[in-house]
Amino acid sequence: MRIAQVAPLWESVPPKLYGGTERIVSYLTEELVRLGHDVTLFASGDSVTAARLEAICAHALRLNTGIFNRDAPMTMLMEQALGKTGEFDIIHSHLDFMGFPLARRNPTPTVTTFHGRLDLPELQPVFREYMEMPMVSISDAQRKPISWANWYATVYHGLPKDLYGLHQNSGTYLAFLGRIAPEKRPDHAIELAKRVGIPLRIAAKVDPMDQAYFHREIEPLLSDPLIEYLGEITDTEKNEFLGHAMALVCPYDWPEPFGLVLIEALACGTPVLAYRRGSIPEIIEDSVTGFVREGIDEMTAAIQRIPEIDRRRCRRTFEQRFSVERMAHDYLRVYEQALGNSCESEVEATNFLSWPSLSTSA
Amino acid sequence: MRIAQVAPLWESVPPKLYGGTERIVSYLTEELVRLGHDVTLFASGDSVTAARLEAICAHALRLNTGIFNRDAPMTMLMEQALGKTGEFDIIHSHLDFMGFPLARRNPTPTVTTFHGRLDLPELQPVFREYMEMPMVSISDAQRKPISWANWYATVYHGLPKDLYGLHQNSGTYLAFLGRIAPEKRPDHAIELAKRVGIPLRIAAKVDPMDQAYFHREIEPLLSDPLIEYLGEITDTEKNEFLGHAMALVCPYDWPEPFGLVLIEALACGTPVLAYRRGSIPEIIEDSVTGFVREGIDEMTAAIQRIPEIDRRRCRRTFEQRFSVERMAHDYLRVYEQALGNSCESEVEATNFLSWPSLSTSA
Repeated sequence: MRIAQVAPLWESVPPKLYGGTERIVSYLTEELVRLGHDVTLFASGDSVTAARLEAICAHALRLNTGIFNRDAPMTMLMEQALGKTGEFDIIHSHLDFMGFPLARRNPTPTVTTFHGRLDLPELQPVFREYMEMPMVSISDAQRKPISWANWYATVYHGLPKDLYGLHQNSGTYLAFLGRIAPEKRPDHAIELAKRVGIPLRIAAKVDPMDQAYFHREIEPLLSDPLIEYLGEITDTEKNEFLGHAMALVCPYDWPEPFGLVLIEALACGTPVLAYRRGSIPEIIEDSVTGFVREGIDEMTAAIQRIPEIDRRRCRRTFEQRFSVERMAHDYLRVYEQALGNSCESEVEATNFLSWPSLSTSA
Repeated sequence: MRIAQVAPLWESVPPKLYGGTERIVSYLTEELVRLGHDVTLFASGDSVTAARLEAICAHALRLNTGIFNRDAPMTMLMEQALGKTGEFDIIHSHLDFMGFPLARRNPTPTVTTFHGRLDLPELQPVFREYMEMPMVSISDAQRKPISWANWYATVYHGLPKDLYGLHQNSGTYLAFLGRIAPEKRPDHAIELAKRVGIPLRIAAKVDPMDQAYFHREIEPLLSDPLIEYLGEITDTEKNEFLGHAMALVCPYDWPEPFGLVLIEALACGTPVLAYRRGSIPEIIEDSVTGFVREGIDEMTAAIQRIPEIDRRRCRRTFEQRFSVERMAHDYLRVYEQALGNSCESEVEATNFLSWPSLSTSA
């Protein structure tokens, strides 16, 4: 299949640092290439891929901090990737609704994956206007505010199986990973650690907009000997950081569309403690791969039961439900649906049958 | 003629405060209505117009300071205003190149006026891609970095004649009006006032991004008894502020595409002292409506010659070259050019002949 993957230009593909969308676009692109598809990746020129790279600008836009018109490369991206006909069988846009105006006018089917929250009221008229556009959600929870749109599927994110490895033995600390931000409730993670007397290690970046919150609310809490703040860590450090943890703590207080860090923990065999918000109950099966609870009291109680969780089961769940192979398989089905081709072609059927893990995936 | 005016949504039309583009869109729209054209204005819902208002969002986007996706109303604006066929004879976009992707795909001719600077290198590929789009510059200087694009005309901004009135007698102070920003060189205006011993009144806003510059570089200079800082003033206050000034001082050190404040001064009969940058020499005729000089020494020397400038001549120049009637006339010619209609229709010819001032305009 001739497939165009259209990435936002904010980070390279894969991203040098933080960048969930660009990481997923990278994993998906490389897997589609591995499966023998003819893939073109539209992205910034500092991206690295086995696909054909169409570089729209030399560097990821995040790196341009001076006077710079970001609308210019974005306009070029839309025109080059979404505006042309005949070069691709399917176009897969990761540009949110920004790609809709041109996608609507292009006879080549365009599928859009939404990577962010959809609960802002100003989004409603846009989705009503473009009712016919094929859309993919990254969790069922994400699509709730606009459940009436043209949803083709929910495709959960997936990671390469060798990115993280199973750590069979439970560690001795709780882990908090990601961003320091009010909606992530790092204060709850700290309070929890103090209540149960278990060390908490925090590996998290602080965005400029969250600096004031960090200094005012979180920094004063870090002096407790149970709490260790590591700053931001790299992907390779994550394997050790997550793998050696007793559990990942996710007291998030917002409707996270998909928590990539949750499946990273599962990939390491590490159970997850989380509040019942957004996509969390779709990712974590309560009492099986972690505990999904409401409020700090319930989470405190759940910590005692962590030894009941089988870390090999966490890893197996990751392999079955959150591998890049499963994600690529799901997307290929979506592409075929968009092409109006309900029966899989012979080539693809052969590919699919060669993957034992897929027989157990959703 | 059925004309669509497409405003950015950042400010209402006209703007409640600062907003050069939205002011010009408003003046042009109202004048086209007055001339009997069937005008539709696409803008935020808090806009006020005699045209048919197509409200894309309830309020100007600048007023939405919380979590708000600005791309959503912008996408709706493009689809509604630039994506439809058959409703208008001509579409006039003020959205920069943002409107090009849909304009290119719409058989209704779309003319775009550029309101900002065009000298950023990342703009070049966009203009090369959309070489066929009819474009209007607001000064000849503005178009220089992309002189090879499809320029239909330069149309200087214009103001309603009754907005400001001639102040026949020269005032006793120098005026600085606009924004406190490094490229506007308010420090040069202050230095100039001190050198010649003439009071300087500064009526200017300070944007959040320029607060540090203001506190560090400018505030310490305001203690001199010759210098008076008034903060931001309203449109109605401008008439007195500019009219009672001896001269407007514009030591701008960047290629200003068009300085609206310069023609506001001329409308009051007030001469302008300015550096030779961007559009300045196109607006101010040296030794006739002010002095266009290079550097603070030359400007200091020029101040002695302000009494030579005839304030009535400044006002007359404004009426001839920078009135809204002249601007609307120019744009109607551009619209006809875009429609491939070189001979003016009877109705419009009648309208034009009824304006005595137009016989002397460019």
